[in-house]
Amino acid sequence: MSAGWFRRRFLPGGPLPAPRPPRPRSSPVPYRRPRFLRGSGSGPGTADAPRRPDVRPVRSPARGRALPWNAGYAEIINAEKSEFNEDQAACGQLCIRRCEFGAEEDQEWLTSCPEEFLTGHYWALFDGHGGPAAAILAANTLHSCLRRQLEAVVEGMVATQPPMHLSGHSICPSDPQFVEEKGIRAEDLVIGALESAFQECDEVIGRELEASGQVGGCTALVAVSLQGKLYVANAGDSRAILVRKDEVRPLSSEFTPETERQRIQQLAFVYPELLAGEFTRLEFPRRLKGDDLGQKVLFRDYHMRGWSYKCVEKSDLKYPLIHGQGRQARLLGTLAVSRGLGDHQLRVLDTNIQLKPFLLSVPQVTVLDVDQLELQEEDVVVMATDGLWDVLSNEQVARLVRSFLPGNREDPHRFSELAQMLIHSTQGKDDGLTEEGQVSYDDISVFVIPLHSQGQRSSGH
Amino acid sequence: MSAGWFRRRFLPGGPLPAPRPPRPRSSPVPYRRPRFLRGSGSGPGTADAPRRPDVRPVRSPARGRALPWNAGYAEIINAEKSEFNEDQAACGQLCIRRCEFGAEEDQEWLTSCPEEFLTGHYWALFDGHGGPAAAILAANTLHSCLRRQLEAVVEGMVATQPPMHLSGHSICPSDPQFVEEKGIRAEDLVIGALESAFQECDEVIGRELEASGQVGGCTALVAVSLQGKLYVANAGDSRAILVRKDEVRPLSSEFTPETERQRIQQLAFVYPELLAGEFTRLEFPRRLKGDDLGQKVLFRDYHMRGWSYKCVEKSDLKYPLIHGQGRQARLLGTLAVSRGLGDHQLRVLDTNIQLKPFLLSVPQVTVLDVDQLELQEEDVVVMATDGLWDVLSNEQVARLVRSFLPGNREDPHRFSELAQMLIHSTQGKDDGLTEEGQVSYDDISVFVIPLHSQGQRSSGH
Repeated sequence: MSAGWFRRRFLPGGPLPAPRPPRPRSSPVPYRRPRFLRGSGSGPGTADAPRRPDVRPVRSPARGRALPWNAGYAEIINAEKSEFNEDQAACGQLCIRRCEFGAEEDQEWLTSCPEEFLTGHYWALFDGHGGPAAAILAANTLHSCLRRQLEAVVEGMVATQPPMHLSGHSICPSDPQFVEEKGIRAEDLVIGALESAFQECDEVIGRELEASGQVGGCTALVAVSLQGKLYVANAGDSRAILVRKDEVRPLSSEFTPETERQRIQQLAFVYPELLAGEFTRLEFPRRLKGDDLGQKVLFRDYHMRGWSYKCVEKSDLKYPLIHGQGRQARLLGTLAVSRGLGDHQLRVLDTNIQLKPFLLSVPQVTVLDVDQLELQEEDVVVMATDGLWDVLSNEQVARLVRSFLPGNREDPHRFSELAQMLIHSTQGKDDGLTEEGQVSYDDISVFVIPLHSQGQRSSGH
Repeated sequence: MSAGWFRRRFLPGGPLPAPRPPRPRSSPVPYRRPRFLRGSGSGPGTADAPRRPDVRPVRSPARGRALPWNAGYAEIINAEKSEFNEDQAACGQLCIRRCEFGAEEDQEWLTSCPEEFLTGHYWALFDGHGGPAAAILAANTLHSCLRRQLEAVVEGMVATQPPMHLSGHSICPSDPQFVEEKGIRAEDLVIGALESAFQECDEVIGRELEASGQVGGCTALVAVSLQGKLYVANAGDSRAILVRKDEVRPLSSEFTPETERQRIQQLAFVYPELLAGEFTRLEFPRRLKGDDLGQKVLFRDYHMRGWSYKCVEKSDLKYPLIHGQGRQARLLGTLAVSRGLGDHQLRVLDTNIQLKPFLLSVPQVTVLDVDQLELQEEDVVVMATDGLWDVLSNEQVARLVRSFLPGNREDPHRFSELAQMLIHSTQGKDDGLTEEGQVSYDDISVFVIPLHSQGQRSSGH
């Protein structure tokens, strides 16, 4: 990982904290009212903030020239579920080298971005569990993996159509036609690079955690703006939405034991040994008891979207592979998410049953063609960890965005303040925004990314 | 299977034809202009029709009283790809017994539908390959399987909320709450019954084909109207759409080697022995050759939606698990669909490699809440095999529906004529309806199901 790739890293990337025992994500913890400090908006580590400020404004540094894309504004709140913040974030400019310079990996080649670079922007949120170690590693690593993966295919990305052969000659005269027929476009290489970067980062985290004797995992939500498009890659239960004047569009979907039930049950069907005889892969409305034996009860298996009835046998009384409902649903009684990074060592309590084969590091990538949108000044992308979405719906967030931005057009800090305000509205102020004044007790991170800019193309190619 | 369940079966269900060697679906066959006879609209086996009429109007028999739902009108054309029509259809009233009568399976209990029955309607299209045997078996069997599966859960279907325990007492006082929290509704039992019925029918077909030394498979598209909802279950590449005045809504999606690439590649990743060292599971823009060795070429694997480059190794030169593009895409070089019934014996030519583990019998079920639609008289569902959709888009079919129906309101046969007209428009008349006057050389079957009726609820409970 070459230093300096990021113009700025906003969140602690220093020495990792000492090893801590894993704790399942969202497991019940004694409630402590989160400390909430209004960010001054003047940048990270504000004067009135404590050593580890609970609210940490994250802002792209002013660089003298206008960035083609505003770099986004974030707020993070530590609900003090753990000593260190389990939410981590990163953002910055993404510079992809377009030609080989040799092995000068460590040169400070980022000072300026000449024509040889394809530039974009990167935002990422990582929601850790079992300690902050994986989230910190991901915040320090994933952008490097992504840059490497993009540089490996950049030649194809900047071509009108990705060539069948990279750095080589077409062997079959109709190769371009085959590529055309498959509909392979430059954006598919970015999607592939994001998918590979998540996998590579997961491997790095696995090695680093093992080497340092640490544990933990994290979700990952990444947005990348490149060549006029916004790519959103998600592995976990964070969420990104597009908010415009007349539109709210989800840019990601959540991966939880409930949303991925069929994939998880099927894996257990294919490899029953993964359950070590301790769990049943079948889903029932509740955990079955001895009294249910012999009765016909509602159930479903991996190939079913619908429900049916089955006669309860003894093996059905085992603990369910996926148990609980909604926010309480757990994979193997342990984990509330089904995709993410890390957790290589995570096992079901007091057993040797591993979570990892069920837990995937593969993200789902969606593409927003920003150049095709007729952007308005108030069009934004809101990215946030689950703490926000537990309390606010997409529509509620959109309402807050629309009520806040137009009245604050002159305020240069309005996007940052909007991010603060979104977090603020989850902290139990009964302002009628959340249903029944719901309160979030979770760490929360929010990015607000304004899409409007003078020149919409963010790439320098 | 109790006789008489169907009020009428419209398509030949007699002795199955003699065993014929399997032929891969949509494999190139010498083109013969399909015989096309205008149906007289007077019912099956019209006077002027040949022994096996190529166009076979299928119509629900008049029964003295108005059916709550019109039963739909179908046209089928045999493109003479095979001696017997590989397209088969079935439709009729569905009577689900609500209480146990004992073992009187064979009594003619269908003469009237008293209160003890839940009634609905059933339409099904089966597009056979490797001969018509599987399609004929499916047309003769699937409705019986479905009836049986529905009768097994009917007690739950007619309850306000399906009970946790069928035919038993609630064991835990909060059982209804668990069911409620899972959001389990009566329609989930119908979905589950459809899923189970497809599986059961697939097993029956496997046994019957083996016993009679026959081979073949078929796609299956089923629509069921029950309790004010329309259920569409699909396994294969047939399609159903809803056409209304201002709306065209797909009610199914196709299952082909292309649409199911990731599932199929993943199965090969999990069980590499299924490929017997003869195929590569990776996707490339074309089949690789010796000249590609050592080059970096575009590829993707099971976990990728995007594309990347890889250095070509010798094993990449094997025949691809999924090869070809669009209509030409084939699973293991053999089959153009990835879901369907039958094909238990189907192997890759001259090998022992089976198609079946990659080929699923599980349907995808979608639900249309007909009672919630403000139905107009011209609202219809169009179900058809791929021969129609190869030539006409959803929008083109919708345009034909909208241009035909309003001007023919007085014609009692208009839905039948519309089905005829849809097929007619695929037969090379350059009427500007299809792009560049495209022609279908495939068997085609079409159901047109009018949704409008006086009383929308089709169930008699």
